[in-house]
Amino acid sequence: MSHGWFVLLDLLGTFAFALSGATASIERRLDLFGVVVVAYVTACGGGIVRDLCLGSLPPAGIAQWRYAAVAGLAAALALGSRALLRHVQHPVLVFDAVGLGFFAVAGAHKAMAMTGNIEASIALGTVSAVGGGVLRDVLLNRVPVILQREVYAMAALLGACIQVVGQSRGWNNALIPWLGSGCCALVRFVSMRRGWALPVAGGPQPD
Amino acid sequence: MSHGWFVLLDLLGTFAFALSGATASIERRLDLFGVVVVAYVTACGGGIVRDLCLGSLPPAGIAQWRYAAVAGLAAALALGSRALLRHVQHPVLVFDAVGLGFFAVAGAHKAMAMTGNIEASIALGTVSAVGGGVLRDVLLNRVPVILQREVYAMAALLGACIQVVGQSRGWNNALIPWLGSGCCALVRFVSMRRGWALPVAGGPQPD
Amino acid sequence: MSHGWFVLLDLLGTFAFALSGATASIERRLDLFGVVVVAYVTACGGGIVRDLCLGSLPPAGIAQWRYAAVAGLAAALALGSRALLRHVQHPVLVFDAVGLGFFAVAGAHKAMAMTGNIEASIALGTVSAVGGGVLRDVLLNRVPVILQREVYAMAALLGACIQVVGQSRGWNNALIPWLGSGCCALVRFVSMRRGWALPVAGGPQPD
Repeated sequence: MSHGWFVLLDLLGTFAFALSGATASIERRLDLFGVVVVAYVTACGGGIVRDLCLGSLPPAGIAQWRYAAVAGLAAALALGSRALLRHVQHPVLVFDAVGLGFFAVAGAHKAMAMTGNIEASIALGTVSAVGGGVLRDVLLNRVPVILQREVYAMAALLGACIQVVGQSRGWNNALIPWLGSGCCALVRFVSMRRGWALPVAGGPQPD
Repeated sequence: MSHGWFVLLDLLGTFAFALSGATASIERRLDLFGVVVVAYVTACGGGIVRDLCLGSLPPAGIAQWRYAAVAGLAAALALGSRALLRHVQHPVLVFDAVGLGFFAVAGAHKAMAMTGNIEASIALGTVSAVGGGVLRDVLLNRVPVILQREVYAMAALLGACIQVVGQSRGWNNALIPWLGSGCCALVRFVSMRRGWALPVAGGPQPD
Repeated sequence: MSHGWFVLLDLLGTFAFALSGATASIERRLDLFGVVVVAYVTACGGGIVRDLCLGSLPPAGIAQWRYAAVAGLAAALALGSRALLRHVQHPVLVFDAVGLGFFAVAGAHKAMAMTGNIEASIALGTVSAVGGGVLRDVLLNRVPVILQREVYAMAALLGACIQVVGQSRGWNNALIPWLGSGCCALVRFVSMRRGWALPVAGGPQPD
């Protein structure tokens, strides 16, 4: 994956994640500062936890201004215009799926490059992709959505596995990231369109 | 403590902690993925926080497949068979007390070996033992049980203190871990059987 | 800032923050251990997160007994005497504002000295000052207060910015910390007295 593609996908994913954080925090009636912080944590939290576990300090998410800038932009959009927000709703779901795949693969790649440890790299690739959403839900005082329904973390896990297996076996470096992130994004997107979900422990709610 | 005992107690404790996480998350109606994740975080979260504070990276909990495997096994048991779960209920409480003592002592030992700092080692031993339960409760969106009632964290603190004091004074290396973890497990087990609890701030609930 | 001032402001701030944690956890009816833990986390949590992000390990908050001692003292005061607590209420609000400014500036200074990275230092200065309060609210199972209302984090951000800008441009080392922490404490204190708040996303609550 060339540097240009890397930056583009990174910023698109950051934007989509930040928008989900900003939207959720507006629903919870946070103040302006709170909306920006939750947007930022949703976008960058997973990568920050990954970097803490890798000892790659200070974490990229707080050392580069562009992440905070993109989070601020997403917060401004979410705060500014509900009409515009409704217009971008569909592209944002696509960006979110693409960002999920990209973060899982980029996180797994960085972890493999720094540790060579397969288990840790799969775990940290998944955490890079879904950790921000977990922190968003903890800050908004609710059980993390990814633990309750939807095929979201499983898609990220799939992308991280493809990247780590490919990297450890020396497969084609130029193709593996595309394969991993593409499969993740596809599984996420199709499952979202079709309403796929994992079974809930204890069977359906009795009501 | 020999390596064989170390691995055995480590896996027993991991299993008991993971089972408590899986059971609690089934009650909250998480999906299958959520149950496995919460089981894993309950079992390994304390050790991961300890390793982050020690700079022992990547944390053992994510770098070795056996922890994830034991957590998955515990989740499968909790999901699979309520009858079987009821049968193992009593042994699991014993394993949990034993695991508490073992994690407190092993965490304190690792922290002393890496930093030589007494305060940090007592704190990190306790965090190793109770941190996973705190993270479980944060993910399940409730106030951590250990902050509200029961003699649980105090028992872990006792075990960590015994280990740290013994280690810093050069007491018998073969005995100290058994003494520390034994005292912790005993205090935990007896207090559980007798319903001991710390006083609640502000006195009894007026109702 | 001389070493004597540094220690004095550090302990005053720690005490005020710990008192806010102890008071909030008594309201939530935690047990004695829970009150001490939440007091300690409120006082030291922000600095611990900062030190994790800087790789300054083990974090100062767990490596020095004085922080735990001050937190224990604050918890004892909050638990012991409501009459005394009411008497110190006003000084404590001043200490809290002063502590906010001091933590923001001290955290930003440490981050600049260790990384030289402007973005990271502003972020970590702010986290040093407000991170403990966020962790307190997460443990007490509520949406963090600083995300919802009041000019609190913005004041810390201001203090951290002044310190980082001054330090990176080589301004007078003896004056910058006083200027940064003074501005932060002043903004916090005035906004508290006047009831200033940031606008809430979505406009006023319809009720």
